[in-house]
Amino acid sequence: MNKGALALLVHGGTDNWSPERWKTRFEAVCGGRPVWRIPDRDCNPADVHYAAVWKPAPGELAAFPNLRVIFNLGAGVDALMADKTLPRVPLVRISVDDLTMRMTEYVVLHVLMHHRQELYLRACQREKRWEPRVQWAANAISVGIMGLGTLGSAAAGALRHLGFRVSGWSRSPKNIAGIECFHGEGQIDAFLRQANILVSLLPFTPDTRHILNRGLFAKLNRNSPLGAPVLINAGRGGLQNEADILACLDDGTLGAVSLDVFETEPLPSDSRFWTHPKVILTPHNAADTDADEISKYVAQQIERFEAGQALENVVDSARGY
Amino acid sequence: MNKGALALLVHGGTDNWSPERWKTRFEAVCGGRPVWRIPDRDCNPADVHYAAVWKPAPGELAAFPNLRVIFNLGAGVDALMADKTLPRVPLVRISVDDLTMRMTEYVVLHVLMHHRQELYLRACQREKRWEPRVQWAANAISVGIMGLGTLGSAAAGALRHLGFRVSGWSRSPKNIAGIECFHGEGQIDAFLRQANILVSLLPFTPDTRHILNRGLFAKLNRNSPLGAPVLINAGRGGLQNEADILACLDDGTLGAVSLDVFETEPLPSDSRFWTHPKVILTPHNAADTDADEISKYVAQQIERFEAGQALENVVDSARGY
Repeated sequence: MNKGALALLVHGGTDNWSPERWKTRFEAVCGGRPVWRIPDRDCNPADVHYAAVWKPAPGELAAFPNLRVIFNLGAGVDALMADKTLPRVPLVRISVDDLTMRMTEYVVLHVLMHHRQELYLRACQREKRWEPRVQWAANAISVGIMGLGTLGSAAAGALRHLGFRVSGWSRSPKNIAGIECFHGEGQIDAFLRQANILVSLLPFTPDTRHILNRGLFAKLNRNSPLGAPVLINAGRGGLQNEADILACLDDGTLGAVSLDVFETEPLPSDSRFWTHPKVILTPHNAADTDADEISKYVAQQIERFEAGQALENVVDSARGY
Repeated sequence: MNKGALALLVHGGTDNWSPERWKTRFEAVCGGRPVWRIPDRDCNPADVHYAAVWKPAPGELAAFPNLRVIFNLGAGVDALMADKTLPRVPLVRISVDDLTMRMTEYVVLHVLMHHRQELYLRACQREKRWEPRVQWAANAISVGIMGLGTLGSAAAGALRHLGFRVSGWSRSPKNIAGIECFHGEGQIDAFLRQANILVSLLPFTPDTRHILNRGLFAKLNRNSPLGAPVLINAGRGGLQNEADILACLDDGTLGAVSLDVFETEPLPSDSRFWTHPKVILTPHNAADTDADEISKYVAQQIERFEAGQALENVVDSARGY
């Protein structure tokens, strides 16, 4: 029996993320299944059952009449969901432990940097000032996580382990040991009112566009040793109203922010985010993924699918993630 | 029955750490026991059974003929052990969860800062460069902890939780789940040969003076994505040979360091540590302690002692910690 082919629609990656490397990598784990790097004149589109994609051109996937599953080689599927010609077959998100652990590292690092007054301490070092300030314990700080999927739950657990009070908000109800869980529109204000550090790990959908705005920041809790609340966004740039963030940093509504994502990436050199003293900025590298782990994950899901088992991490097209 | 008095020999603290605050705090938790702030002309030295001290003058404790226990209001007892006139009664170190958790925060924060290339990323931000580098996973890094007491064990557990490979070295054999434990002079080289990030939480004793020197740094492992190894010292300044650290940073034997402690504190303004681009410096604030927690701990230990139970965390005068 011929195995259905896997088509690779990978555009724009370099080095380890180049289309050629992905082809070699998938051939190594797909046990004899044909792997085509698109475009390839020798590929018969009708043979293709699976597509692994990274930033495919709009409409490009419609060329495969027998497509059964699309795998996105990253966690965020917002760009794909915007393609109205996307074939109506299951779309699978990447969910590998490696990516989850890297995002947890990022969240823990940035929560600790704000909690432990790193912006102040680095300024002291630059100015040669030996002036320790009072340092509070982790349990004086409530970290609120927006988005309680795989990434949010793992980050919440690690922060609990370090002694922070942790709560979370998600669209649908969740139950996570040790974490106070809020959900839905009805509970978002109660969630915000008790959060001193807000961590955004939300998916980007039409519902969440610019959800991180002045109205939301103004509801955050100011009764902690931090004083003004802190925002950490490691989700998507489109979640944030960037003009609001800058204005809220300037007028004290926000005390500081860590941003890994921006509405325009790379961030333009004239952006005020580069130089604002209350901004810690990273170049969308919160959770790089190990490409080998991703290809193994895709091969595993194809095996499950062909054995008649349910695919994991299928995107709900109504919710958009 | 009269309760034996508690004498406070606290010098040099300000604000929350002032002698007056300590007196109020101890009176609140010592259930009617007389609390004297020394010097006080009304205090009869013979009534004093307990002393709680912070940087007492050499010889000062010898004034109390009926002293039964000395409590040091901090974790490090090196200054006290150097006092040859110290009465030969049990000396108790502070070991409260609060201090342990704060030290864990510091260690996790600084390991993550080096692992996640914070020195590079902050330089990029200053120079407005959007240039993400390849980021490796935590399991590519082996963190070696010198000192596996309460502080070292807790930090080791938190780093394991984040996915780092963790090993430890201590004077005497230890057994900690998930941590490769080395001990004694005989195993120190094997320990160093596999450590990429070295965390020092050693007590300061005549044996450990300047243990962090070029000979030791040269044995650390260089085969990780970090390249050159990293030193994090949150123990005591006397553990480190500061000229060696600077020379090793300059010639690449060390890639970067985080230092919370120094041979002279406050760090003199002409020290190269302030301005060295590979140095992350904090003003001996890795593990501030909650004064209320400390006074409760001392009151608890006195109760145990008077009920005939064993004191906890008694310093071994032969080892010096």
